[in-house]
Amino acid sequence: MTYCVGIMVHDGLVMIADTRTNAGVDNISVFRKLHLFQKPEEYVFALATAGNLAVSQSVLTLLSEGFHNPDTGESETLVEAQSMFKAAQMVGRAIREVHRVDGISQEMAQSGTFDVTVLLGGQVRGGRLRLFMVYSAGNFIEATADTPYLQIGEHKYGKPILDRAVTEETELYDALKIGLISMDSTIRSNLSVGLPIDLLVLRRDAIRPELTYRIDEAEPYFHDLREHWSAALREAHLSLPTPPYPRETDASD
Amino acid sequence: MTYCVGIMVHDGLVMIADTRTNAGVDNISVFRKLHLFQKPEEYVFALATAGNLAVSQSVLTLLSEGFHNPDTGESETLVEAQSMFKAAQMVGRAIREVHRVDGISQEMAQSGTFDVTVLLGGQVRGGRLRLFMVYSAGNFIEATADTPYLQIGEHKYGKPILDRAVTEETELYDALKIGLISMDSTIRSNLSVGLPIDLLVLRRDAIRPELTYRIDEAEPYFHDLREHWSAALREAHLSLPTPPYPRETDASD
Repeated sequence: MTYCVGIMVHDGLVMIADTRTNAGVDNISVFRKLHLFQKPEEYVFALATAGNLAVSQSVLTLLSEGFHNPDTGESETLVEAQSMFKAAQMVGRAIREVHRVDGISQEMAQSGTFDVTVLLGGQVRGGRLRLFMVYSAGNFIEATADTPYLQIGEHKYGKPILDRAVTEETELYDALKIGLISMDSTIRSNLSVGLPIDLLVLRRDAIRPELTYRIDEAEPYFHDLREHWSAALREAHLSLPTPPYPRETDASD
Repeated sequence: MTYCVGIMVHDGLVMIADTRTNAGVDNISVFRKLHLFQKPEEYVFALATAGNLAVSQSVLTLLSEGFHNPDTGESETLVEAQSMFKAAQMVGRAIREVHRVDGISQEMAQSGTFDVTVLLGGQVRGGRLRLFMVYSAGNFIEATADTPYLQIGEHKYGKPILDRAVTEETELYDALKIGLISMDSTIRSNLSVGLPIDLLVLRRDAIRPELTYRIDEAEPYFHDLREHWSAALREAHLSLPTPPYPRETDASD
């Protein structure tokens, strides 16, 4: 499994991805799932992938090496995309291409699990900073002001904190903190999501990464974040008023 | 779907269950999932059920009306159980009995979903306060000091707060607050879990409910809890230090 989250706020975009892949609990590995294609002031495309690793790697390879576009008759690569929307379409076409080549035999081998989802965030010069989620069918949705985050993989554990704390107005590095808490909630509860964590911060209109970082096991800030957060939650629930419901201490019948 | 949680702390036991049942998003109903069998100072058994409603209701009916125990050759009801362990065994037998009668045709109709899980909490005079989770196979596990809570149904959204905040030392009504927050996290994220919420507090060795209550839509405390909690989380993440990772504000290449 995997957990990746993208949070789009007014000042920019945060993307966070774990690195654990597993084929059973006794066969886990570390693979980067957050990939960056950039040329400062021209374009920056960040892709986070969840699902079958073979499919994800094939999709990424097609996007970087180029593949045939039946609409134009030409071969094209991701970095040639003239807009984020065109880039999302290209990711979708790459997924469909992998499905065309490998999907049928995969389905025969694995009883119908052609499984990949991609978060695509970034900005192209002259365009807006955008965040998309591309499905395994190749179609996609975009994060909006109403729902400023998108998740792929094991998304349930990390969703409540996002629902409660993230709005479009959230400050960029607060969004990063909330994303890290969401990731930590998931790591604590699900063995198939694990450190190291890759993260990326794109400030709106900079068209270059402001922060790229890998958090590994020994990283003190993330360790402290976990402790601080647990302590803050304890304080928070202690400060809530006690339920006023009538107690039946004298009940008898 | 359903969400029910039982939290066992030093001073007692909290059980919370939602009431929403659904057959598709366009066919939802309210059914009580938290059921109480009690005779003060003799026994108190609380059952929360998740899964197929027909199965749950059949299991409850067997337990209250009595069913044949092949080991003893006699008919028995839940309230005759001489200990919590025997009560858990009886719940397991009731599930197996429903499976024997209805399971095969259900499997034929619904492609293999004989689906029920039960939280059983309570105390019998002379015994300990205990909390069990009974699986659809009829076997069961018990909450312990290492993991003082058990969940059934849609458990993922509400798990992080339990993992971070609940220990055996948690005060009884703090456990209730945390359980309500866990329920609220689930309700916010999953349409198939909904108000009203039934709750129960059993103080250790009292052998009678200290609190039974139904929270409905208009209930002010639960409404305030949601608001307070979201505000507390916002404060908590604002108070965390900003990630110290080096920013590439001057990057160029």
